[in-house]
Amino acid sequence: MSLLVVGSIALDSVETPFGVTEDALGGSAVYFGVAACLLHPLQVVGVVGADYPFERLERLARRGIDLSGVVRAEGESFRWKGRYSFDLQNRETLETHLGVFADFEPDIPEAFRDARFVFLGNIDPTLQLRVLDQIHEPTLVACDTMNFWIDGSRDVLLDLLKRVDLLMINDAEARQLSGDWNIYRAARWILERGPRYVVIKQGEYGAVLVDDTDVFYVPAYPLEEIFDPTGAGDAFAGGFMGYLARTGEVSPDNLRRAMVFGSAMGSFAVEAFSVNRFQEIDGTDVAERVHRFGELVRFEITADIEHVGR
Amino acid sequence: MSLLVVGSIALDSVETPFGVTEDALGGSAVYFGVAACLLHPLQVVGVVGADYPFERLERLARRGIDLSGVVRAEGESFRWKGRYSFDLQNRETLETHLGVFADFEPDIPEAFRDARFVFLGNIDPTLQLRVLDQIHEPTLVACDTMNFWIDGSRDVLLDLLKRVDLLMINDAEARQLSGDWNIYRAARWILERGPRYVVIKQGEYGAVLVDDTDVFYVPAYPLEEIFDPTGAGDAFAGGFMGYLARTGEVSPDNLRRAMVFGSAMGSFAVEAFSVNRFQEIDGTDVAERVHRFGELVRFEITADIEHVGR
Repeated sequence: MSLLVVGSIALDSVETPFGVTEDALGGSAVYFGVAACLLHPLQVVGVVGADYPFERLERLARRGIDLSGVVRAEGESFRWKGRYSFDLQNRETLETHLGVFADFEPDIPEAFRDARFVFLGNIDPTLQLRVLDQIHEPTLVACDTMNFWIDGSRDVLLDLLKRVDLLMINDAEARQLSGDWNIYRAARWILERGPRYVVIKQGEYGAVLVDDTDVFYVPAYPLEEIFDPTGAGDAFAGGFMGYLARTGEVSPDNLRRAMVFGSAMGSFAVEAFSVNRFQEIDGTDVAERVHRFGELVRFEITADIEHVGR
Repeated sequence: MSLLVVGSIALDSVETPFGVTEDALGGSAVYFGVAACLLHPLQVVGVVGADYPFERLERLARRGIDLSGVVRAEGESFRWKGRYSFDLQNRETLETHLGVFADFEPDIPEAFRDARFVFLGNIDPTLQLRVLDQIHEPTLVACDTMNFWIDGSRDVLLDLLKRVDLLMINDAEARQLSGDWNIYRAARWILERGPRYVVIKQGEYGAVLVDDTDVFYVPAYPLEEIFDPTGAGDAFAGGFMGYLARTGEVSPDNLRRAMVFGSAMGSFAVEAFSVNRFQEIDGTDVAERVHRFGELVRFEITADIEHVGR
């Protein structure tokens, strides 16, 4: 079933203890796309400036990413520059140039309006709402947000929550949004405001899916080498939504598998700078990593465990 | 098979956002014991002062905890006083009075020297080594340590590592010990120094078991209410070692189950002050929580996942 992402398309300059990149492909829609396309074709809506190396994006089209919703506007592309600490735990933003992204007004092409699975990347919640106004009958709408909007556009964000099925945010954002430091209470607070599901990402630890009756936990994949955490959350979203779109079914068991695909894609994202790792892998690598997740958490409940209770 | 723990027996005064306790039962051997005894009888070696409310300890004996290795010395008991931040993420030590614990010299009763499963709670590594000198032929020796010994008794600690089968520490300690911020590299560093297994506890996120070929991750149990994190790590160790002693077999699958029992016991520990929660639960509660862990991480790898790779 059709999959649509609306989000940023950026040029990232990133410094980690392992190296530096300059004007590399980045942005939420790009990280989402390179992950999701390994599972399902998708449509992208976004904006780039006249200076964007569009041919680098076009190479992604060969992988099933439809870029006909990406506007090439007059002006400069969105650029972000950041630096990570030695242990990759902290990130400092050095520069942000919004460029054409400042005036981004998502216009969903007619051909995309029937999208069944929709991911609203981290943009102004006012724009996220306008996207929803243009979508006919989605099966599942998921959205991301960040501290900037939680702080500055709280009311609009709460309006948005009433209209999305799933909120996908990190633990710090969940705490900020709910005002509660306990992430399970924070999840319940969010569920009471609209979404049927909430996914709280916990960085190097993993992610948790919570709904009214169920909790599912997927750890982060154990990696001895992490090069660049940028985009891990968007790649997670791409794996999650890509798997749902591929299977077309929002069942509890499929949502659990979607979480595992999400965590797998997040782990690929951090193994190299920018989206480079996704240019090296194919579905076989993804399937293999998903199998390893099974092994990572597998334990059998044996009959003797019942005797503990006797 | 016989299970022995050597560790501290303390009186804890703890302040959390939810209340205050004064001179409550605490210490590594006590938290370990109340958890382990739900799975297997155990023997405790430790010291208390003349002022210790020994009858409160003796009530635990009815649960299968053999206290005949606990010395009642002249002097004051070990007391610890601490305060947690509003979100329980940070702990400040307000007072530490070692009392009789300062001169603790573990003398393992003859009847305990055949112990097959041994847990060396967080005490001076010199004393941990002396305990090992008194044990005849253990099947598995696990030990804990802390920043104080990693910093101040590094060489002795490295000697100890050559003689234990399993090191169980938290992530900050693993990083401090190895000098590496990546916990999987830190685990490998530790494995190269002696232990066959390392368990790295990650607090509210869970814990990971690493050996030469395998990684197993168990999340923390999702709790909306956490009252007092004190002793969670020792209760984890009690559940882990109690399950191994109960089953008597150190197989890869049993170690995985032991991790789940550990995480279950850690989750009970934080649900009330001191060891109070353990006085309310029995094996049925433990078995039920272990089942819930199964549900928490369960996902099925379906045939369609193979097609991702095609």
